[in-house]
Amino acid sequence: MGKEKVCLAYSGGLDTSCILAWLIEKGYDVICFMADVGQEEDFEAAKEKAVKCGALKCYVEDLKREFVEELCFPAIQCNGIYENVYLLGTSLARPVIARAQIKVAQKEGCFAVSHGCTGKGNDQVRFELGFYALQPSIKVIAPWRDPEFYNRFAGRNDLLDYAAKSGIPVTSTKSKPWSMDENLAHCSYEAGILEDPNTTPPEDMWKLTVDPMKAPDQPEDFTVTFEKGLPVKLEYTEGAGGAKKTATDTVELFLAANQIARRNGVGRIDIVENRFIGLKSRGCYETPGLTMLRSAHIDLEGLVLDREVRALRDSFITTNYSRILYNGVFFSPEMEFLTSCITASQTNVNGVVRCRAYKGSFVVVGRYSETEKLYDASESSMDEIGDFAPSDTTGFISVQAIRLKKYGRAKEEAGQSLVK
Amino acid sequence: MGKEKVCLAYSGGLDTSCILAWLIEKGYDVICFMADVGQEEDFEAAKEKAVKCGALKCYVEDLKREFVEELCFPAIQCNGIYENVYLLGTSLARPVIARAQIKVAQKEGCFAVSHGCTGKGNDQVRFELGFYALQPSIKVIAPWRDPEFYNRFAGRNDLLDYAAKSGIPVTSTKSKPWSMDENLAHCSYEAGILEDPNTTPPEDMWKLTVDPMKAPDQPEDFTVTFEKGLPVKLEYTEGAGGAKKTATDTVELFLAANQIARRNGVGRIDIVENRFIGLKSRGCYETPGLTMLRSAHIDLEGLVLDREVRALRDSFITTNYSRILYNGVFFSPEMEFLTSCITASQTNVNGVVRCRAYKGSFVVVGRYSETEKLYDASESSMDEIGDFAPSDTTGFISVQAIRLKKYGRAKEEAGQSLVK
Amino acid sequence: MGKEKVCLAYSGGLDTSCILAWLIEKGYDVICFMADVGQEEDFEAAKEKAVKCGALKCYVEDLKREFVEELCFPAIQCNGIYENVYLLGTSLARPVIARAQIKVAQKEGCFAVSHGCTGKGNDQVRFELGFYALQPSIKVIAPWRDPEFYNRFAGRNDLLDYAAKSGIPVTSTKSKPWSMDENLAHCSYEAGILEDPNTTPPEDMWKLTVDPMKAPDQPEDFTVTFEKGLPVKLEYTEGAGGAKKTATDTVELFLAANQIARRNGVGRIDIVENRFIGLKSRGCYETPGLTMLRSAHIDLEGLVLDREVRALRDSFITTNYSRILYNGVFFSPEMEFLTSCITASQTNVNGVVRCRAYKGSFVVVGRYSETEKLYDASESSMDEIGDFAPSDTTGFISVQAIRLKKYGRAKEEAGQSLVK
Amino acid sequence: MGKEKVCLAYSGGLDTSCILAWLIEKGYDVICFMADVGQEEDFEAAKEKAVKCGALKCYVEDLKREFVEELCFPAIQCNGIYENVYLLGTSLARPVIARAQIKVAQKEGCFAVSHGCTGKGNDQVRFELGFYALQPSIKVIAPWRDPEFYNRFAGRNDLLDYAAKSGIPVTSTKSKPWSMDENLAHCSYEAGILEDPNTTPPEDMWKLTVDPMKAPDQPEDFTVTFEKGLPVKLEYTEGAGGAKKTATDTVELFLAANQIARRNGVGRIDIVENRFIGLKSRGCYETPGLTMLRSAHIDLEGLVLDREVRALRDSFITTNYSRILYNGVFFSPEMEFLTSCITASQTNVNGVVRCRAYKGSFVVVGRYSETEKLYDASESSMDEIGDFAPSDTTGFISVQAIRLKKYGRAKEEAGQSLVK
Repeated sequence: MGKEKVCLAYSGGLDTSCILAWLIEKGYDVICFMADVGQEEDFEAAKEKAVKCGALKCYVEDLKREFVEELCFPAIQCNGIYENVYLLGTSLARPVIARAQIKVAQKEGCFAVSHGCTGKGNDQVRFELGFYALQPSIKVIAPWRDPEFYNRFAGRNDLLDYAAKSGIPVTSTKSKPWSMDENLAHCSYEAGILEDPNTTPPEDMWKLTVDPMKAPDQPEDFTVTFEKGLPVKLEYTEGAGGAKKTATDTVELFLAANQIARRNGVGRIDIVENRFIGLKSRGCYETPGLTMLRSAHIDLEGLVLDREVRALRDSFITTNYSRILYNGVFFSPEMEFLTSCITASQTNVNGVVRCRAYKGSFVVVGRYSETEKLYDASESSMDEIGDFAPSDTTGFISVQAIRLKKYGRAKEEAGQSLVK
Repeated sequence: MGKEKVCLAYSGGLDTSCILAWLIEKGYDVICFMADVGQEEDFEAAKEKAVKCGALKCYVEDLKREFVEELCFPAIQCNGIYENVYLLGTSLARPVIARAQIKVAQKEGCFAVSHGCTGKGNDQVRFELGFYALQPSIKVIAPWRDPEFYNRFAGRNDLLDYAAKSGIPVTSTKSKPWSMDENLAHCSYEAGILEDPNTTPPEDMWKLTVDPMKAPDQPEDFTVTFEKGLPVKLEYTEGAGGAKKTATDTVELFLAANQIARRNGVGRIDIVENRFIGLKSRGCYETPGLTMLRSAHIDLEGLVLDREVRALRDSFITTNYSRILYNGVFFSPEMEFLTSCITASQTNVNGVVRCRAYKGSFVVVGRYSETEKLYDASESSMDEIGDFAPSDTTGFISVQAIRLKKYGRAKEEAGQSLVK
Repeated sequence: MGKEKVCLAYSGGLDTSCILAWLIEKGYDVICFMADVGQEEDFEAAKEKAVKCGALKCYVEDLKREFVEELCFPAIQCNGIYENVYLLGTSLARPVIARAQIKVAQKEGCFAVSHGCTGKGNDQVRFELGFYALQPSIKVIAPWRDPEFYNRFAGRNDLLDYAAKSGIPVTSTKSKPWSMDENLAHCSYEAGILEDPNTTPPEDMWKLTVDPMKAPDQPEDFTVTFEKGLPVKLEYTEGAGGAKKTATDTVELFLAANQIARRNGVGRIDIVENRFIGLKSRGCYETPGLTMLRSAHIDLEGLVLDREVRALRDSFITTNYSRILYNGVFFSPEMEFLTSCITASQTNVNGVVRCRAYKGSFVVVGRYSETEKLYDASESSMDEIGDFAPSDTTGFISVQAIRLKKYGRAKEEAGQSLVK
Repeated sequence: MGKEKVCLAYSGGLDTSCILAWLIEKGYDVICFMADVGQEEDFEAAKEKAVKCGALKCYVEDLKREFVEELCFPAIQCNGIYENVYLLGTSLARPVIARAQIKVAQKEGCFAVSHGCTGKGNDQVRFELGFYALQPSIKVIAPWRDPEFYNRFAGRNDLLDYAAKSGIPVTSTKSKPWSMDENLAHCSYEAGILEDPNTTPPEDMWKLTVDPMKAPDQPEDFTVTFEKGLPVKLEYTEGAGGAKKTATDTVELFLAANQIARRNGVGRIDIVENRFIGLKSRGCYETPGLTMLRSAHIDLEGLVLDREVRALRDSFITTNYSRILYNGVFFSPEMEFLTSCITASQTNVNGVVRCRAYKGSFVVVGRYSETEKLYDASESSMDEIGDFAPSDTTGFISVQAIRLKKYGRAKEEAGQSLVK
């Protein structure tokens, strides 16, 4: 009888290479899996290394399109944001990665999946909740939560020794004093020297975006067109005096937005956030294109979305979608429900936003819609009477005041006059 | 028997001067009232003009301190924001103005108050709901909603003719092609050429903040200390190589924050918003200091506020406080209730935020708290096991997964596998 | 040129008959409109009276089916309730009435619609907001808000005099000391002697339901089947020892539920509620069938709806749907949005609820679902270990406790130990 | 050196007696702890048994007053309810029990606390989250989650054998085919034959309340007075023609309310609910007095609470308080925050509610307040014009309609007329 197979999320780094060797040592056949969600990485080299280290195979799956279309774009539609600041860059990639890994595991007949996430972070939760929903019978091997593993490999030196012993090639590059996670939407930095929330991130840490101080001295203007809340066209100029370009393909559009934001230093944040498991954690994030597309979307909603629909959506969808995604519960009844609600809220979000990026900041310089007519300049105008009786407002105010007059009188009678 | 007295909110401009004359023509004695909420204005000249135009008296009330302490600071405590973007600058000033006007009206024995707000805007609602709560028996004379008035003065020329006839001095200054409202916290621009939401505001429109492109080439760093969510100390340097300064008085602190933001171009926004009366309206706003203090407050909450308290506060207080304030319902049972809740949420918001302003953007470069210990670097560290069993997380995930496995199985059985 | 036409919502009573005469006196041609939403009424007699009083025509539109299917059933799906108690019986009927009246007005080429609602109630708001959304150009004639009308008809005697003068037949029936509104879903009682909230409603007031004290001494059992949250089958016994019956047609099912509830005294409430216009109002309501169908629906959701979907739905849809409907904003972007969300939430609400009515109370005595399997008796069982490691819960608790231990420690350090 | 001490929550039953013996066998000194939260129980006998079985001591703590005052009354103030139906009876008692047990543990110098909760229920979570917040350093011994224990005692016979061997007296009373939990506020029934959610609970299961069919044929009236949302006086008659009684002491008042509800069959429910750990569970509950006091409180709020305060409280406090309490997170920053908000919401909830209980149902027959004047009969009256211009409502409606007319027009232009 053959060995049992495990599908390991492999990165090519020291940790997952040691896990690979350890799984083999435990008697498993290992299928490695790498997700291409747009991160800068030498997939071929990693693939080669995996096989060299004993993996039966190593899959590299290109998930960029599904990542943008199924995750990033709905996040834009609902203005997703966690704790007022974080644009969910890491969380957004997890569902497509988990799904692709399960597909490989199923194709290869693996009884278990494995990953190299630590035992204190959000990502283990996000991956595993995805795994269990996607294939409830799957087993998960999480070495960094297995005492046998984490007691044996208590420090980096133990891993290096094991690598040497196991014939794992180790690159001599000195590791950075923080950990990173990159994808098409963002790059995160945490741990190491960043653990002190009062330590300013060193300038050379930021990878995706230029330092705002070194960004061009001239603002860069561009235009985003939305249909049903989704970006469908990006019009921009490649550099000063450059050619006019138009991106309409989702991935191209997203990449072009990234380029604009990256060269103008847009999208850096630095926060202390609350992890799902109840610990606080300091994270620095770069989310170049998504920051701008989301802000442009919010702006357009001002023009075309009904006030009450917006208020309901803000209070209900934005926060819940963000919390659920952050907590890794993407494959769930509640996310399926919310996704229907997002779509229902975006029917009229059609229009064009004119944008500007400059030295770290993003501003909107104009917007219009050919199809949505909720805004009517003449009607809002202070100078015209139009189809609106000013005296109507008197009645509006009087009726609103009924309740407030009672309040004022009650306060007075209680000797707590509001006029102090 | 003497004439009935009216207390008129007076600005010194053409509109309210004509209203003053018209009220006198209608047979009232008029007491003028001006609120000093920090706007740039020649109060003495306006006062003189009021009396010259026939007012019995003209009060100028300095409301800066109560404006900052009773309105701006609670708005910072609850991260107040309307429709994701607007920091409520105009709305914040209305309650203190309404209250001071009622006090003058009461002191002078006025049966009515009057104002020059148009019939389509938010401000008429905000003032009048305030008036009615503060003194339920008060009468309100709103000429721009009175057909007798607005039919007679259909355009600016009618007002100019009336001014000439009534001996109202008219300054020859050409009026700007938009209307403005200024106070210590912000300046707003709307109407006129801004009514087309696709018209980019001209650079010379912005009054409070420097154009980010003309802001200093070096970032400016400063430090804000919060106690119970309130800014209590601002440490900064007056210009490059300048002297170190510290502001602790609320008004001084607020003004200093304004200065830093203004010289670095921080706090401009341009939106289409939904007015209380159901119209959409385009507004441009500068909110220099408040923008930075609010962002610093949000940042500190990441470090010191419990996750669940924060989530409850975000979903409950921030949006409701902002909506209620925007709609002018400040003097109300619901605001009294919310205010208690704000205070209850801020007990632990104590700490220091290190901030940076640069060419239109504001970033946090570090934060710490001497007293609050929710964040624990070693505990969050990915590198240490500490007082935390990694295997605990396995149980945490397994329990969360119970519900999701059921979902996955049900989907599978329904032939809608999540793994597509 | 012919006269302008007005479509009047006509009831056959003194008020609307006088309004009819008054509109004719004002020079209009009047088309009367009556909505049959299931109230007990002699439509033929009223129709005759309308024509006798001078109406050009009188339409009687049967709206029962659309009332049940488009309003009552979605209200059941989302457990609609206003201020914890009121099942929205009156509000539910208003949208279909407003729509049918506009259709008649359009068919007859009326420039305006008219109604006999008072100026302090909710119904004027509900009808007119409906009218304006359905036909934005429509004019509304609301005599009870028109000083010309209400000053002329200051009391009932004025109306009686006018009726005599105008040849309006007046029935001698003494009017009840309260006003009523009836439809298929409910009957409301308010005003008159009920205005004192401490006055217990007289037993002979209640029209639809039997006094619980006079209801049968034996409970009545029945069964409701739901599909996607909608009642699709009602199985019951006609009286003690009676024949077994099954209703599947929506209107028949609703009527049968009414009959069961009515004979068992189920569905009476008595509350003080907050009207949209800011006044408090005391209302007594009978909502027989809807009370039971809604409760049965809630019960089934316990069995088949995912916890998180339910929590989101409860906090978002139920309250907002109820508030919007109560306030008469049914034809609106927000209700269109919410309606999509209701549907999305009910996909799995399939199953059967066994119910019991007895002397004013309704209880569930069992429920099951053939298709939904979220509930698993063996899994929940305290006696079996099953596919569930008890130790997992230890981890679940430990992770939840991280945050709480910090809280406990901080309290202790602050000298505010939680153990007092 | 002495043995380590453990404080065991002891019930006198088979399970906890075996746990007691097992803890002793493991080498611990055991202090037993019993909480008197109003359940029917022979505390003296249990105490004796504990000592006989080897406990060093057995504490019986009377927690009835703190249970009523600190838990039940705030639950009434905020209308606490879980998933629309469950009044949280079990959850309410857990915090006072956990706190008293920790106090005993601290007094006795125990390093750990222990309990007999199963590994699938809510109570283990509620107790332990309480323990950890109350004393973060405490250890918890949960035998039913310890494989050593639960593998050894796989069935009831194993426990009986162990009892025989360990000299634990076993009463021969046949255990009921369900499990129960009783306290002053309620009694719960679950597990056993109740695990099939379609099994109707047998009539002899219900312990606290009389079968509604056997309840008196005459309704019983009584009166509840509230101050700041708290019940402060209960006026009732002891039986038909009995003496008038008044209860003002909190515990007496609560007990009297229980008696009235119990003899009239009020407060039974039967639901399938969602446990914190993600399983669904069927529970039957009797909550006699609390059901009535909560309903009376809701009724009074209709009369005296401002509409907007009520709406905010409903959407924010009621659901969150209930969820947090249900999930056992009572000792937490969020509950501390919510508790402040509850108090702030109840300032004006002062008044008297006249109530009626009859054969399983509770109704309000009148209410009034001497101090709160939000309700004004003449003002709400349809018959009086009063201090209210009916034409004001026209303006109110017109302004509300602005947005809806736009919606109607947009739908028409899109060929989706609302008039179908």
